[in-house]
Amino acid sequence: MAATIRDVAKRAGVSFKTVSRVLNGEATVRPVTRQRVLDAMDALDYTPHHTARQMRTRRSNTIGLISDEIATSPFAVDIVKGAQLEAWHHGMLLLVVNTERDAQHEADAIATLLERRVEGIVYAAMFHRSVEPNDRLRHVPAVLIDCFEPNGAYPAVVPDEEQGGHLATQTLIDHGHRRIGFVNLDPVASAAAAAGRLVGYRRALAEAGLPFDPELVRHATTATDQGYTLTAHLLDLEDRPTALFCGNDRMAVGAYCAIYERGLRIPADVAVIGYDDQEEIATYLMPALTTIALPHLEMGRWGVRRLLDLVAADGEPLADPPAFATPHRLTCPLVTRDSV
Amino acid sequence: MAATIRDVAKRAGVSFKTVSRVLNGEATVRPVTRQRVLDAMDALDYTPHHTARQMRTRRSNTIGLISDEIATSPFAVDIVKGAQLEAWHHGMLLLVVNTERDAQHEADAIATLLERRVEGIVYAAMFHRSVEPNDRLRHVPAVLIDCFEPNGAYPAVVPDEEQGGHLATQTLIDHGHRRIGFVNLDPVASAAAAAGRLVGYRRALAEAGLPFDPELVRHATTATDQGYTLTAHLLDLEDRPTALFCGNDRMAVGAYCAIYERGLRIPADVAVIGYDDQEEIATYLMPALTTIALPHLEMGRWGVRRLLDLVAADGEPLADPPAFATPHRLTCPLVTRDSV
Repeated sequence: MAATIRDVAKRAGVSFKTVSRVLNGEATVRPVTRQRVLDAMDALDYTPHHTARQMRTRRSNTIGLISDEIATSPFAVDIVKGAQLEAWHHGMLLLVVNTERDAQHEADAIATLLERRVEGIVYAAMFHRSVEPNDRLRHVPAVLIDCFEPNGAYPAVVPDEEQGGHLATQTLIDHGHRRIGFVNLDPVASAAAAAGRLVGYRRALAEAGLPFDPELVRHATTATDQGYTLTAHLLDLEDRPTALFCGNDRMAVGAYCAIYERGLRIPADVAVIGYDDQEEIATYLMPALTTIALPHLEMGRWGVRRLLDLVAADGEPLADPPAFATPHRLTCPLVTRDSV
Repeated sequence: MAATIRDVAKRAGVSFKTVSRVLNGEATVRPVTRQRVLDAMDALDYTPHHTARQMRTRRSNTIGLISDEIATSPFAVDIVKGAQLEAWHHGMLLLVVNTERDAQHEADAIATLLERRVEGIVYAAMFHRSVEPNDRLRHVPAVLIDCFEPNGAYPAVVPDEEQGGHLATQTLIDHGHRRIGFVNLDPVASAAAAAGRLVGYRRALAEAGLPFDPELVRHATTATDQGYTLTAHLLDLEDRPTALFCGNDRMAVGAYCAIYERGLRIPADVAVIGYDDQEEIATYLMPALTTIALPHLEMGRWGVRRLLDLVAADGEPLADPPAFATPHRLTCPLVTRDSV
């Protein structure tokens, strides 16, 4: 049976009223006491927001966004922008806290947002990956953006990597290419994207009746020159590819250097398609880079919309966690420029 | 004589206690009343934070960061990271609100941060420019980052563009170059950076006894292919430059394409130096781009440190606004890679 607020009070050794104060985010509770109450909630697996919301006298009209490492994937801040636009649209303020993937900062950030009575939290990763948020996130309605919890503990939205890989490959096939090199992302660091896109690449080839040649697929590791080096390897093959699918626009920068160094033209000799639609790269390359966009803005919007649904349904039982087991996938669209 | 809290109450037609509630950020004040009080403060040019702070029973340990258009200059989010690191260092939480340069969002953001009892606000632009923040910013200690108010109404920190332009040019001169092309930023849209760097470029040439040749200086406009096009023009000069100073790393991407297209090598035939140290570009180019870094992280830290000084001095008279007339300038360091 689910723990009640009285169970929490008993375990924490405080009054019902004190627990209620913590749930209401009142700052009159001493930090050490608040910590005891939160620990008791954790231990009892208590999900307080149904009750807490009913105890509240007014709405805060505020939601929180926790992002993991904004500085390392700056182009993904469109997630923040999308979340913000959707929040504004519903008359909500979005408070953003970055954690730089530090566990203590994350725990603090969640606690502080709860204190500020946020009605819910969106938790955003700056690249598609598996996450294990601090358990305290269970204390409010929460939605994951550009990441997923392996056990499906939260609703989540991610890019449809397989569809994107398929679209990139199909686009090159549609332009008459038959030997298509694929400089894929790091299969460990970027597992979700790398695996999904490879499936899409292979499916597009198969649908067109083209053979899958493992020699045409290279995987980048963390070294930043892999776009250049791996492209150089592919171009120096005896039967070199006439088109390249690069795992991101940054690697396409290196690919351009390798192609031009060999006196080849883009797209006449080698067509190039990127991934990410990182505008400050794609539009500055010459010719401008055709690429597959990540739906950052849309994921931000979707996440907040889903969160507000959860908030609105508050007091009602949530769907069982298994309902969240499969993240919602958003389409990665083609952005046509001049490199294919 | 400075307006008092009683003047504000009188003008707003509310009680002293109501004004005090607004100053304390209590949510029990009706929005329409709060608006009346804030309007009265504006009209009376009332700077409440001295009094307000004394009325507060406790510190919020929270500061706000308002940023203008995070999505258009994503690499500048290191400002947010620096501000956050410094805030954490002092046990403060940083609440971030983005406005996308929308005046109403900015006014709302400031009001909401005040409601949440922030002890001060840093106001960050995502590229070096002149700003006119909403007047309500005067209601708390505030510091501008990567921007300045033309009348010096706030303390501000910006990059030292002249020093950076000088360092870039000097670096190329030190490598033996005598004809140095300069693909500068848009002189209107990026006035502060473009003008400062040109002064630095000319000073470095003069110090080395080199002539200033206006033909070697080109200015980009908003079109994104300017790095490519302007470099092509410079390389096609009869007496072409042996080195290029690009106004940002994005333009260097276009410059590389133009250089390679002509069968020239970097740096053997043409050396290239960029500006910004936008890592995801600079490290993916081949050869990796030598560039001048913008001190985003340091500006974020400096801004919060200065803000916390102001907060600590609260109740004491602030320095006269003219003291802020000259923004504090932070050095733009050289990041040596392989293109010079």
